[in-house]
This record gives sequence, structure tokens and C-alpha cells, in this order.
Amino acid sequence: MEAFVTEQNLDQTVALLSHTPAALNALLRDLPESWTSRNEGEDTWSPFDVVGHLIDCEHTNWIPRIEWILENGETQAFRPFNRGGHARETEGKTLPQLLDEFARLRLQNLSLLESLNLQPEDFERHGMHPTLGPVTLGNLVATWAAHDLTHLHQISRIMAHQYREAVGPWSRFLGVMQCAGHSEKA
Amino acid sequence: MEAFVTEQNLDQTVALLSHTPAALNALLRDLPESWTSRNEGEDTWSPFDVVGHLIDCEHTNWIPRIEWILENGETQAFRPFNRGGHARETEGKTLPQLLDEFARLRLQNLSLLESLNLQPEDFERHGMHPTLGPVTLGNLVATWAAHDLTHLHQISRIMAHQYREAVGPWSRFLGVMQCAGHSEKA
Repeated sequence: MEAFVTEQNLDQTVALLSHTPAALNALLRDLPESWTSRNEGEDTWSPFDVVGHLIDCEHTNWIPRIEWILENGETQAFRPFNRGGHARETEGKTLPQLLDEFARLRLQNLSLLESLNLQPEDFERHGMHPTLGPVTLGNLVATWAAHDLTHLHQISRIMAHQYREAVGPWSRFLGVMQCAGHSEKA
Repeated sequence: MEAFVTEQNLDQTVALLSHTPAALNALLRDLPESWTSRNEGEDTWSPFDVVGHLIDCEHTNWIPRIEWILENGETQAFRPFNRGGHARETEGKTLPQLLDEFARLRLQNLSLLESLNLQPEDFERHGMHPTLGPVTLGNLVATWAAHDLTHLHQISRIMAHQYREAVGPWSRFLGVMQCAGHSEKA
């Protein structure tokens, strides 16, 4: 089950992580706010909020947790992640500023990741998630990439939601209009 | 329910339609094939196939159907869309070629859309979908944009699927890993 052990997979992960900021930039920059600032209803996120969350994770989640495992193994659980942390990142900012900030932090963190020079055996090291229990460093690095994808998936769903009425009967043929989100809250 | 009637919304739609090719290009070009050529299992599409499908739709769906409504109203149903048409577009092509082709066709079709000089009353015109029944031209134009989003949603889900094992216990917190697709087949 621990499929994430080869260097080849690290290359694959890093390739995706390198592409995400440019993909979000190309999708979102200069779009009307009717696409980027609207959400799916009370207590949900807009694409703007999601970019703030990705920035928050670059600061507090991925590299800090990788380093935590390298230093502490599974003897001490990660500090819980604060899902409201994006508010701190977005306050007073514009979307272009957030997109620039995300790109800058991602580049910096990929450089830090490279400097850790992780070896195949490192990916088998165990850490302790405060809710999920034992995880491997390999799980964590793969989740960094999959987390980009879950939020790209979410952004496309939030944006499609804005056209729920406009598409009329076509809603039936548009899978994204039936997507209910699915994330379990940490 | 027919919310798609203002020029403002046409601007919003065109903005998204203009961004999609660059977003897919930034996400997919030069990614390892382990991201772009794998699918979700038998009879499912890879991101490569999805780009082929988007090209096919540029050829056979959006502009031809808009023109069909302008010429025939609801007196004659659209020709049914062939969901297998992407195979014709992808055969012998590389992903970079498909991304270039999609960008070229989209630009050309947005220029055609502009040349139609659609007026607010045009968005209320009715057409006849072979399966869905009566639809408006406004529904159709909005669906063009929402269809981009449903396939961006799909691509992020297909890619995330490749890391289903690798993320280990984190799967619970990644909504995209629970997404079942949802599209009703035409």
C-alpha cells in the first residue's frame, strides 16, 4: 500500500507542484470577480479564499511537517492545521497579489525540498498525524500534490456553481454541477 | 430561471472561455506522462483524452449549435454529439500538439462568437436538444463555459486518482478522492 517510495515518484510530484501556481494564475488572473470572489453559499470558500488557503499551507503545512517527521519521527504528533488560517493570508490583498505570493512561496518550498535531498528510505519514515494517526513521509509528500488537485477540483466546482441556473437543462450532463464536495473536515 | 440574458454575463463567459486553454497548457504541458496519459480505469479518459474531447467540441458543438439555433430555432433538434469523437482528434498527436490546437480553435471560435454580435434577445431564442428538449441560446453559451469547468474538474480528479494509494490515510481529507464523476451520459 505504500506505493510512494521511488525517486521517480518524487520527480512526478515535484513536476505537478511546479505547475500548479502557473495553472491557477492562467485560470484566475484578470477574470471578473463574478468568477473569483463568489462562493458556494454560507461558510464556503471562493477561488480567492482557496488561493489564500494554499498560501497558508505553504507556510504552515508541507515543509514544516516534512521537517517535523525528519526531526521527531512519530514520537510527537504534528501540530493540528488551522483551516481558518487563510483569512490571515487574504486580508487586504488582491487576487493578483495572492497568486504572486503563492508562486513565490511554492518556488521557495520546492527549493527547500530539494535541499533536504530525501532518499528512498526517508519516504518510509513515520510521522504521527493528530487525527489520522500514523502516516509516512511519502504519504505527506504525495498529499502535497494531491492537495493542489483537490483545490483545483474545488475551484472548478465553485466557479461552475455560479452558472447553475444559466446552463438550464444541461446541468444533467455536467458532472461538476452534481459534485457535493466530499471533503471530510479535519 | 433563465438567468443568462445580459451582456455582462456574455463578458463573464467569454473571459472564462479565453482563459481555459492557457490554464490547461500551464497545468499539463511538459508534465510526465504518468500524470497526463493515465486514466481512472477501463473506459475512462486520461487528461490527454479530455483535451482531445475539448478540441472535438470546438469543431462540432458550440459554434455550430449556436448557428443552428440562429438558423433553425427549435424546429429542428441539434445533431446528437458523438462522445467518442475525441479519438479522431487525438490519433497520432502529442499532448503539446493538442494543447496548441485547442488554443488555436478556441481563439478562432471566440472571434466567430464576437462576429455573431449576439444581442440580449438572442439569448432567449429557443433550440431543441435531442435528449434534453427545449434549451435557450443563453443556456448553450453558458454551458460552453461550464463545460470547460466540468472538464477541469475531471482532469484534476483523474490526476488525483493516480495518487490514491500514495497519499495513504490523507485520502479522507481530500475531497477529490471521493468524487465519483457524476456526469450523466448523453
